[in-house]
Amino acid sequence: MSKTAGCCQNCLHYIFDYETPKTLVIPSLRVGFVFRFTQLLVVLYVVGYVCVVQKAYQETDSVVSSVTTKVKGFVFTNTSDAEPRFWDVADFVIPPQGDNSFFVLTNMVDTREQTQSRCPELPNPSTTCADDCDYIEGYNDPRGNGIRTGLCENYSTTVKTCEVLSWCPLEIDTKLPERALLAAAENFTVLIKNSITYQKFNFHRRNILPHINSSYLKICEFNRKTDPDCPIFRLKHIVSEAGEDFQDMAVKGGVLGILIDWSCDLDWWAGKCYPKYSFRRLDNKNPVNNVAPGYNFRFAKYYKTADGEETRTLIKAYGIRFDVIVFGTAGKFGIVPTIVNLGAALSFLSLVPMVTDWFMLTCMRKRELYSRQKVTYLTEEADTESVSDVH
Amino acid sequence: MSKTAGCCQNCLHYIFDYETPKTLVIPSLRVGFVFRFTQLLVVLYVVGYVCVVQKAYQETDSVVSSVTTKVKGFVFTNTSDAEPRFWDVADFVIPPQGDNSFFVLTNMVDTREQTQSRCPELPNPSTTCADDCDYIEGYNDPRGNGIRTGLCENYSTTVKTCEVLSWCPLEIDTKLPERALLAAAENFTVLIKNSITYQKFNFHRRNILPHINSSYLKICEFNRKTDPDCPIFRLKHIVSEAGEDFQDMAVKGGVLGILIDWSCDLDWWAGKCYPKYSFRRLDNKNPVNNVAPGYNFRFAKYYKTADGEETRTLIKAYGIRFDVIVFGTAGKFGIVPTIVNLGAALSFLSLVPMVTDWFMLTCMRKRELYSRQKVTYLTEEADTESVSDVH
Amino acid sequence: MSKTAGCCQNCLHYIFDYETPKTLVIPSLRVGFVFRFTQLLVVLYVVGYVCVVQKAYQETDSVVSSVTTKVKGFVFTNTSDAEPRFWDVADFVIPPQGDNSFFVLTNMVDTREQTQSRCPELPNPSTTCADDCDYIEGYNDPRGNGIRTGLCENYSTTVKTCEVLSWCPLEIDTKLPERALLAAAENFTVLIKNSITYQKFNFHRRNILPHINSSYLKICEFNRKTDPDCPIFRLKHIVSEAGEDFQDMAVKGGVLGILIDWSCDLDWWAGKCYPKYSFRRLDNKNPVNNVAPGYNFRFAKYYKTADGEETRTLIKAYGIRFDVIVFGTAGKFGIVPTIVNLGAALSFLSLVPMVTDWFMLTCMRKRELYSRQKVTYLTEEADTESVSDVH
Repeated sequence: MSKTAGCCQNCLHYIFDYETPKTLVIPSLRVGFVFRFTQLLVVLYVVGYVCVVQKAYQETDSVVSSVTTKVKGFVFTNTSDAEPRFWDVADFVIPPQGDNSFFVLTNMVDTREQTQSRCPELPNPSTTCADDCDYIEGYNDPRGNGIRTGLCENYSTTVKTCEVLSWCPLEIDTKLPERALLAAAENFTVLIKNSITYQKFNFHRRNILPHINSSYLKICEFNRKTDPDCPIFRLKHIVSEAGEDFQDMAVKGGVLGILIDWSCDLDWWAGKCYPKYSFRRLDNKNPVNNVAPGYNFRFAKYYKTADGEETRTLIKAYGIRFDVIVFGTAGKFGIVPTIVNLGAALSFLSLVPMVTDWFMLTCMRKRELYSRQKVTYLTEEADTESVSDVH
Repeated sequence: MSKTAGCCQNCLHYIFDYETPKTLVIPSLRVGFVFRFTQLLVVLYVVGYVCVVQKAYQETDSVVSSVTTKVKGFVFTNTSDAEPRFWDVADFVIPPQGDNSFFVLTNMVDTREQTQSRCPELPNPSTTCADDCDYIEGYNDPRGNGIRTGLCENYSTTVKTCEVLSWCPLEIDTKLPERALLAAAENFTVLIKNSITYQKFNFHRRNILPHINSSYLKICEFNRKTDPDCPIFRLKHIVSEAGEDFQDMAVKGGVLGILIDWSCDLDWWAGKCYPKYSFRRLDNKNPVNNVAPGYNFRFAKYYKTADGEETRTLIKAYGIRFDVIVFGTAGKFGIVPTIVNLGAALSFLSLVPMVTDWFMLTCMRKRELYSRQKVTYLTEEADTESVSDVH
Repeated sequence: MSKTAGCCQNCLHYIFDYETPKTLVIPSLRVGFVFRFTQLLVVLYVVGYVCVVQKAYQETDSVVSSVTTKVKGFVFTNTSDAEPRFWDVADFVIPPQGDNSFFVLTNMVDTREQTQSRCPELPNPSTTCADDCDYIEGYNDPRGNGIRTGLCENYSTTVKTCEVLSWCPLEIDTKLPERALLAAAENFTVLIKNSITYQKFNFHRRNILPHINSSYLKICEFNRKTDPDCPIFRLKHIVSEAGEDFQDMAVKGGVLGILIDWSCDLDWWAGKCYPKYSFRRLDNKNPVNNVAPGYNFRFAKYYKTADGEETRTLIKAYGIRFDVIVFGTAGKFGIVPTIVNLGAALSFLSLVPMVTDWFMLTCMRKRELYSRQKVTYLTEEADTESVSDVH
């Protein structure tokens, strides 16, 4: 019994005896100052830089977003190349449904009344022929415009080219208007509605801010200085803010990013969370190492003639694709990042005594005295008896 | 030689002499208890909160996703406004290809047989005229519907308005049906196929879970309680789960988010990674500070008459755009976050002796005794001799 | 006055007296070695693993991306099922505008000359009828193809089915060509232009790298070994790299991911940031638990006959949807993660003396000696006098 009791007591001693380092107090103002000053530096860094500047105490979440766009405007074209025509949104915005990426047609090459038939190729060194179109059976030039029939036909009075089976007449996309057909598109406006969510914080926002009323929205137009919150943008303004010229860009097309930055600090009040708009050209306008410069694509409108034959109007559409890109990170006080950052700071605080000791034992005049009283060397002679007991 | 040897030995001493703090053991149960209890608190926090609740030992990755949608349903409309018509998916789903964002037409204003021609403007204060349409040359009202010709024509027997060059007849979008034309669209279903990847963990998943078989998929319909894993959703159900009424929403349109949350814990077994569906209206239905409420866009179907003239049917389409938004973060044990969090916890453990010392030296009855034995004051008098040696 | 001065002095003492632990130096090579070795291990881990391998000193940012795609190719179909036809990009790429997701038609079921009219249902157990089509008033089979009129009509000479009001003739999508109609689509090429941004680091890049020139871009084709930087991909190559067979996939369609990994280390020079392409099939080709296998959708081309009636050609389009998925994380030296990781490492360094003490006091032969000199037990008897003074 007494043995168990003794064991228990030993155990208790083992667990609850508190072992604390013996310390030496150095009443030196200089050493004390070095100690406190180093401590202060670490604390300042933690409070000032980590907490205030970097907000490292925050948990973060990425934005989840939904965008609706609506272009407004119309234009009347009356050039020598084409017949006069009135264009509205249904004609020049592709796709029509107003996603986060919309295309505004500014220039085009249209080829009307195409039918499935045969016609001579466009003349170039590999398509011109003299008498018979000599080609390997089954070979179709991937840079050509159709399936060769083997015949050689008159392209014009002077040139003969290989005949192809294709949508004829072939598109001649070299005569692109040098001044954009829909140059007036620069005055179109686009309304961008953007709704975002930070799921982790259950935070929802729209880019139409609460303090904006309907009457303002009917007349406003985005301007970084005077109307930074208006979600209606004039295309010309977007392009010029991106450092480009609308008329230049309209000829061959391009891709323009409308970037909405929703970086938010959700800590104190939600009102600090505003969208910040910026604009940047996303394709490479530099003609060096540039394949297929600008932005264009082909689409067709299909018709049927009275006798049931299918015809189409092929349109090579040049224009500006606007990509609304929403990004951002929200931060909010979180216990884990706070603990981790405080922990790291504490680690550095635990370095402070080491620095001060080093200073005290090397730079101070009385370093010998400090060293003698702080550091004891193991005394082997006293092996058989307790050091404490001896004295 | 002996000098070098001595130097070496010094160096060895410098590197391998181990300096350990001298400690004082306090056999006080109370102090020991405070020490152990504080330690326990820190350990509990680290194990319980950081590890179990916050899973801070995990590396995280964001989801990469691909979505396919397929709407099913048809409807027959027979209202007084329009002629009877049968609608199927090809008629009312735009765009047809089933991306992560699809639009279901529910209401519309269609203007048929539009041609490039001249017609009087819709009457409003700025377009009505008496005799001649006085306007600044080249000025085109951006809120008008076309290019003014300068003439003043009869809009009706009582009203004369400025004539414009436009797609005529002009669209009159004020007579929007008050009950949605395709009200029956609420019974359409949509199949959502979603395939996700966590690249960092090389983890792939589909929202059609392995335990689901084809026969179940043919008859099931998503229901949070009875069929939470079925990827087929009834539109009415989606809208009502978002807290909206389908018939209300169908009239003027709107944007509805189908949110798929793929937050996963990949640590123990992959089976814990399921999609969680939720639904939320993304546009602002609140009529205050709301520009262009609802969701609509205009598109046109182009036709050619027998004599080659282009006509179009302009459709102002109102409806619900469903945005499938996939988000989520996967976590998996990672050595770096574990180390960082353990390190931070250790830092806090190193605070425990400080707390205990403070408690011991201020709150305990024997604090004087503890202090005397723990803390030594520097004794300047003993300057010339080693403190240890003196005693 | 003197009291205030004394108080001030006390205060100064309290703040600037430096308390440093008294230490004992153990001149044992073995203990010293254990100490230094453990220290080395921790430092090695921190420098080697955390810094070099995991780059935990870096701040990270997620990629923001914009994609443009352009498919090239044409094909001539001449099968027994359909009349000969020439197809170009405007015919088989949907949507035409070249987003980050594009669809290439490879197979189809087209139903021409559909009009709003009446026709007998496709025969199946629920639609066949004998004399009169008995159905509940207002009931429309959601698996049917139209609104039942109640009549029973001859579908063929042998079968009678319920008549429906629908777009007639009905589509018969069971006779899908077993060999894909546009099998030759495998030789199409697609140019992918991708422009990315790391907003936090103000870093912009394109997948057309600076060292690539236009003449190379005109002839190159992506190949992991010979042309890893060429942004032009042959569809067949993409599909085979994903481990699939193009011809198999072309029949019923599918979804294929073109994954562009922009994981970047922006620390030393930006040139280390290259796109890495990979390809993966995203839909489930496994016929088990697979609803609606493959990838298809229906769309219609609308025509008007000479007498103004609307007809359409319904196309059930099968094909491969290519999703360009851009992902990646950039890392760059950041002061906060560095501090946090260093802090965590320091915490572990502060564990080293504990380990060494434990080793010294349990495993060494002289552990009794070390213990006696290191650890002092509180001496209650010496209550009234300073322990230090006694000796």
